Amino acid sequence: MTTDSLPGKVAVIGAGSWGTTFAKIAADSGAARKAEVQIWARRPEAAEEINSTRRNTRYLKDTVLPANLRASADAAEVLAGAQLVVLAVPAQTLRERLREFRSLFPKDAVILSLMKGLEVGTDARMSQVIAEELEWPENRIAVLSGPNLAMEIAREEPTASVVACSDLAVAGWIAAACTAPYFRPYTNTDVIGTEIGGIVKNVIALAVGICEGKQMGDNTKASVMTRGLAETTRLAVALGGKTETLFGLSGMGDLIATCSSSLSRNHTAGRLLAQGLTLDEVTETMAQTAEGIKSAQAVLDRATQLGVYMPITENVVAVLQGAISVDELGPRLLARELKPEGVHAS
Amino acid sequence: MTTDSLPGKVAVIGAGSWGTTFAKIAADSGAARKAEVQIWARRPEAAEEINSTRRNTRYLKDTVLPANLRASADAAEVLAGAQLVVLAVPAQTLRERLREFRSLFPKDAVILSLMKGLEVGTDARMSQVIAEELEWPENRIAVLSGPNLAMEIAREEPTASVVACSDLAVAGWIAAACTAPYFRPYTNTDVIGTEIGGIVKNVIALAVGICEGKQMGDNTKASVMTRGLAETTRLAVALGGKTETLFGLSGMGDLIATCSSSLSRNHTAGRLLAQGLTLDEVTETMAQTAEGIKSAQAVLDRATQLGVYMPITENVVAVLQGAISVDELGPRLLARELKPEGVHAS
Repeated sequence: MTTDSLPGKVAVIGAGSWGTTFAKIAADSGAARKAEVQIWARRPEAAEEINSTRRNTRYLKDTVLPANLRASADAAEVLAGAQLVVLAVPAQTLRERLREFRSLFPKDAVILSLMKGLEVGTDARMSQVIAEELEWPENRIAVLSGPNLAMEIAREEPTASVVACSDLAVAGWIAAACTAPYFRPYTNTDVIGTEIGGIVKNVIALAVGICEGKQMGDNTKASVMTRGLAETTRLAVALGGKTETLFGLSGMGDLIATCSSSLSRNHTAGRLLAQGLTLDEVTETMAQTAEGIKSAQAVLDRATQLGVYMPITENVVAVLQGAISVDELGPRLLARELKPEGVHAS
Repeated sequence: MTTDSLPGKVAVIGAGSWGTTFAKIAADSGAARKAEVQIWARRPEAAEEINSTRRNTRYLKDTVLPANLRASADAAEVLAGAQLVVLAVPAQTLRERLREFRSLFPKDAVILSLMKGLEVGTDARMSQVIAEELEWPENRIAVLSGPNLAMEIAREEPTASVVACSDLAVAGWIAAACTAPYFRPYTNTDVIGTEIGGIVKNVIALAVGICEGKQMGDNTKASVMTRGLAETTRLAVALGGKTETLFGLSGMGDLIATCSSSLSRNHTAGRLLAQGLTLDEVTETMAQTAEGIKSAQAVLDRATQLGVYMPITENVVAVLQGAISVDELGPRLLARELKPEGVHAS
């Protein structure tokens, strides 16, 4: 696969904020070579709005979408002829969607996952769900992750990201197909590390959001992020990922962006929990999915199976289950005997 | 050295915000065993204020200092009988102070540096200046660094930190002597990595401050911090430090705290530069030293000597020298060909 043969058609499945924003990137990137991007929206009204007004007001109020981006609620139409299929549906609905659309995927397409979550029940990563359900070869499944707050990208603020695929040439092909003046993707071959960074950061962001809601300072939040990345790295390495991926844009970068921003859903969910809302109330208050709430238990299950020590995740799960209060969380996040620190400490 | 023989007297040289705050930690830590902490203040009025009002209003407006903390402008009095001597003077004045006080240091004392900077001219780390000027053995020189915004610690917000010494037992002894309910030090033996993390983060914080002053988003700032830590790590490793130190509290943690906080001097200096102030105006506006401004050139010199690629530092130096404008900095921070990312990329 070379950059000479960039995709003429890109299909994006999912018209939420990230799916729509990524569709804009791909359309801006492909405009000069007259590439077409088509986005599948679950709700026909959303597709209709995108086509008639070039806006998706539910998720991206102020963004005018490019002219070469169209939408449809008909997955067959969207997927037909796509060389690159981008998946951006809620993590917990992925398997069901893939079963529904399985026969519609063009045989030679490359599939790119934007999703960040572990499937509840199976603890599977999104790329694993894709490989299983579609029986797709892993060298044509890639993931994208990085410090990528969708709202900022929609405003065309300069952003870097990472595309990971076991085949570096495929990663490079995707990167070339979604490079825009405001969006710069790097590449690597560590799919596991890239996915795990994106998944666990949502859990850590919940913890940092709770700290923020409890008016804890920047020293504490920085420590929680640092030790959170250390436990994320332990899990990723135990699963076969690479340490250096976690310390790159898709690990540390994504974690910092998520934990710094009031735009982040998981961070917001943490702040609401800290204010005393119940889990049900938080879920109801937020229009969008806070994936960390759903994935936290699956992350802990994986860690337990592998014997990986993840104290922050463990305590976030305890808060979500109501086993400890948000007031008890703070002291536990920093509690540990005086001893040498280290990523590999257990 | 065991924790049975914790210091009965701790001397702190320097009554700025960090020196005073650390003196409070040591005094709170030692109160139960009736340890005494004495702080050397350059200005007799500052010593007088601490002794008569238990406050240091110039740096810590609202903090009441512990009863077992006293101050003096007489270094001989402060250093006499101290088992632990803590150095917290501006980095560029250290050598001169050590020459002045050399004969006053108790022979068997352990020396702990709180300073974060490279000496301009020699490019030496603070622990190297101490070893040279006092002819002190390296197993009795330690450094402390971490996500340690002094104002937050003074308010007793929970904070973690790192004490590094080539002799782990000495690091543990210091950690035990400065553990308080709100302050938890970890230990390691990587003095080089710990110091370099603390030094270069000031330069990266200048870059992030400039981004913030230019209204760039969290995606960009997270990327600059991530790639900033990667270049810091390359320098530390080239000097003999360890990668994992840089990804711990004294590297990543300190960097995030500094770049997140409006309390940070280097971050503030960056924002002022972005607003169009000249370097001289920034220095004049700020009551305290922004160490990154002084160390940036020395960091770049070291990197150049060792052939280490530090693009963010290079561009910050160019801004400080007036070779490029703050408007030119942003695009340069993210500019790089599409390629695999990595800590070890050059």
